[in-house]
Amino acid sequence: MQHGFPFPAKDPNLLALGFHTGRPVIIAGPCSVETEEQILSAARAVKAAGGTMLRGGAFKPRTSIHSFQGLGVEGLRLLALARQQTGLPIVTEVMDTAHIEVVAEYADMLQIGSRNMQNYALLKEIGRAGKPVLLKRGLAATVAEWLAAVEYITDSGNSSVVLCERGIRTFETSSRNTLDLNSAVVARLESGLPVIVDPSHGTGRTDLVAPLSRAALAAGIDGLMIEVHPNPACALSDKDQQITPEAFRSLMDSLGLLPEASEAVR
Amino acid sequence: MQHGFPFPAKDPNLLALGFHTGRPVIIAGPCSVETEEQILSAARAVKAAGGTMLRGGAFKPRTSIHSFQGLGVEGLRLLALARQQTGLPIVTEVMDTAHIEVVAEYADMLQIGSRNMQNYALLKEIGRAGKPVLLKRGLAATVAEWLAAVEYITDSGNSSVVLCERGIRTFETSSRNTLDLNSAVVARLESGLPVIVDPSHGTGRTDLVAPLSRAALAAGIDGLMIEVHPNPACALSDKDQQITPEAFRSLMDSLGLLPEASEAVR
Amino acid sequence: MQHGFPFPAKDPNLLALGFHTGRPVIIAGPCSVETEEQILSAARAVKAAGGTMLRGGAFKPRTSIHSFQGLGVEGLRLLALARQQTGLPIVTEVMDTAHIEVVAEYADMLQIGSRNMQNYALLKEIGRAGKPVLLKRGLAATVAEWLAAVEYITDSGNSSVVLCERGIRTFETSSRNTLDLNSAVVARLESGLPVIVDPSHGTGRTDLVAPLSRAALAAGIDGLMIEVHPNPACALSDKDQQITPEAFRSLMDSLGLLPEASEAVR
Amino acid sequence: MQHGFPFPAKDPNLLALGFHTGRPVIIAGPCSVETEEQILSAARAVKAAGGTMLRGGAFKPRTSIHSFQGLGVEGLRLLALARQQTGLPIVTEVMDTAHIEVVAEYADMLQIGSRNMQNYALLKEIGRAGKPVLLKRGLAATVAEWLAAVEYITDSGNSSVVLCERGIRTFETSSRNTLDLNSAVVARLESGLPVIVDPSHGTGRTDLVAPLSRAALAAGIDGLMIEVHPNPACALSDKDQQITPEAFRSLMDSLGLLPEASEAVR
Repeated sequence: MQHGFPFPAKDPNLLALGFHTGRPVIIAGPCSVETEEQILSAARAVKAAGGTMLRGGAFKPRTSIHSFQGLGVEGLRLLALARQQTGLPIVTEVMDTAHIEVVAEYADMLQIGSRNMQNYALLKEIGRAGKPVLLKRGLAATVAEWLAAVEYITDSGNSSVVLCERGIRTFETSSRNTLDLNSAVVARLESGLPVIVDPSHGTGRTDLVAPLSRAALAAGIDGLMIEVHPNPACALSDKDQQITPEAFRSLMDSLGLLPEASEAVR
Repeated sequence: MQHGFPFPAKDPNLLALGFHTGRPVIIAGPCSVETEEQILSAARAVKAAGGTMLRGGAFKPRTSIHSFQGLGVEGLRLLALARQQTGLPIVTEVMDTAHIEVVAEYADMLQIGSRNMQNYALLKEIGRAGKPVLLKRGLAATVAEWLAAVEYITDSGNSSVVLCERGIRTFETSSRNTLDLNSAVVARLESGLPVIVDPSHGTGRTDLVAPLSRAALAAGIDGLMIEVHPNPACALSDKDQQITPEAFRSLMDSLGLLPEASEAVR
Repeated sequence: MQHGFPFPAKDPNLLALGFHTGRPVIIAGPCSVETEEQILSAARAVKAAGGTMLRGGAFKPRTSIHSFQGLGVEGLRLLALARQQTGLPIVTEVMDTAHIEVVAEYADMLQIGSRNMQNYALLKEIGRAGKPVLLKRGLAATVAEWLAAVEYITDSGNSSVVLCERGIRTFETSSRNTLDLNSAVVARLESGLPVIVDPSHGTGRTDLVAPLSRAALAAGIDGLMIEVHPNPACALSDKDQQITPEAFRSLMDSLGLLPEASEAVR
Repeated sequence: MQHGFPFPAKDPNLLALGFHTGRPVIIAGPCSVETEEQILSAARAVKAAGGTMLRGGAFKPRTSIHSFQGLGVEGLRLLALARQQTGLPIVTEVMDTAHIEVVAEYADMLQIGSRNMQNYALLKEIGRAGKPVLLKRGLAATVAEWLAAVEYITDSGNSSVVLCERGIRTFETSSRNTLDLNSAVVARLESGLPVIVDPSHGTGRTDLVAPLSRAALAAGIDGLMIEVHPNPACALSDKDQQITPEAFRSLMDSLGLLPEASEAVR
């Protein structure tokens, strides 16, 4: 068992984002922030269907340098605009120590992506920004390594950390990754931290997002992170796994998480 | 896509075992048949808690030759006795073509274990026994290979096949295997066959059996196969993953599958 | 450490096949026996280039039932004919207990394929046939499981066992499997048994067969098993990994294993 | 195929470090720089046995924050001192964009470690430092992803890149990682860049370093990276895989790479 685990429940900064309430936190939004219209449209759809936080990538870690690399600071500005219009807190990825300050200026929660789960320089610095951190699991990281990475963040005194399981790399090719609910449950038991699941990356297939979302919540997971795009076919990244606003609404309905009719109209 | 897929729903032989009814099939019982008292006690507990089929190994594939190898035909006889006393149909593993006939004489459903998923001689013969077949996924088999193995069985004209996902082998060590719900859902979509999940082997940890059982059913899976032993600490195999009758009852309760009070008293 | 390991070196039955001599044993031949002309042509090419045993599948474990399934007993007869003409001992796969007797009648060494490494019924019986056994590693088997499988064979009193590493299943897709020389060396150290490597299955690419063959011998491995076909493009199985007689000759030359010119002319 | 591949052979900056000469480049030295005495002693041993470059970590990526984190800039200074005394060029890891400038001031070659293979912010910046880059493969990276990462470096106009295979993560536990020579050979064929192999991390076992080193060179690989420590039992990191100066000398002898007696005496 790592030092400091399990963490006491009910961290106030996480409570402010909707964790520890007994109701799942639903983070949704596009893979990448692309245009003002796109992010605002996505944010409104997320809000209307009962989503509780907005996601969207401004700094994007892309396997190929020839792929869309994100809008950078302009993307952060658009996310802040979407927050202003919908009231949804925003979470977005930080890829380098040099960007922590600027991202922390705009975001409510800072995300460490899978590829940087063991970027220790970044982990050491990010805790000091004074914002909650969402730590995605590396695609070949064991639970033990994942929790060891948490300690690089909490060592700064910031224990507002949420874990996100997003699929591991296995031999199977019928889904992009293998969503590992076993480990999500184990990480939750061992760390005492909230653990959410990302079925969009965890499956890579729109037809699997809904069944695996239901599975994760049934397993007692604290929330979901789901890619929703106003027009997935035209998305600049992750075309095959982003769902439409309509599919998101239908998913929220099947999870029993759609806001009351009266609220939804607001 | 393999030839013959997807299979038409509602195979009558599977319907007789409780598949295709909209209600999950719950197969439970000990890893191995050990004694008359043990299997009868387990069978009664399974029945009382609402289980719909009885499992128990008579011929056991054990990694080490120094481990308990099963009771063989005597184990089959005890399973038949348990069926007589509880009315539960029985499923048990066949490990070799030479045993198909004798196992088919006693069992209601013939199981192909993970290690034999690509034992093609066995697959070719087993379909001819005229009994439904439960085909477990090999621990490193892709969905495509799993469905290709189905065709070795159905080629004999017997299409009463049920698939069982039981965890795959990955780098992760905090659970014995990685339960792969992604692939269970994909196999169900592609084959049209019923797919069940074995969270006992799929996790190898008693504390994960309940959350992953709930997850599997929430994902739309057709049933569960769960190891239940009257006294897991003394089990001759799989000590760490068999649950007690009390834990099984509690699991069935949490799944909303406990029989009505009046029925349970019978 | 498993019981009985490490085995004493210099088993006489293995010595008779060329193991324990300090010179690598080179087993070569087609994936499947297809026709008399094909197997005789392959056997002559193997012999001429310095190969020491002939391989060829008569009973074939194929992922799809729609693929060529092997010639069965007729294939065994053709292998025996090739042995008669070249003097090369033959090794061929047994897939089921029901075939052990007939294969043992023809073959000098009985092969257990990867998919059957944990077919315990087969392992228990095969040792009793009185022939040396070649045990291929399962594609997701640990070294510990592989050596535990050996004990199912040696429990019959037959310790003439040779191990064959043939690639494991990983996430990598640029080669068909990942040849695991680490484990081949470990298995050799721990078991005391001869260990050979199959770079044809271990890589699945003709352009990798030669470099990985050289690597295996440099690591101290006892021999190689290589797929050689007179006309790979027309092969009924494993087209992409079988090499031509010319490529085999060139490989043997680069390994310093080509017979003296005078012998080759015979 | 990625853009720009394969690269033309004979990059002058790499030639200056001994690549492209037909003779393997042997990089050796301790996992971490610990003290002046330790690194100087290691450097002298590496030089005397015929090693061609010195390795040593100053900034260390450690799974646990409770482990030794490296000496930082002081470590770089000690490496430079070792270079001054032995003439060996030095390679050391950069973990963050903020450290590129200082590391480039001291090192002859900048290493990107496995955990940062997809740290794109770092990859984009490092090429601009004007030094050759050693890019280690991520422990679950495909060859395609590895070569895509190269392009993040070469996009800056710096094509002095060497690849290093250091073992991948698989299910096998008898060695720390699985050294993947298949992929090392494929990466070499596809990229045209020099590829070296790190059998220390690739096996994690001192008894496997020599056989796998021989295997790698026999497969045509361009060099080796080997952990050598004056006193492995007291090492502050990677105790189980660092070899002694004597073992390194013996390895170089078995590779036929020991300097002539007259030179060694110098």
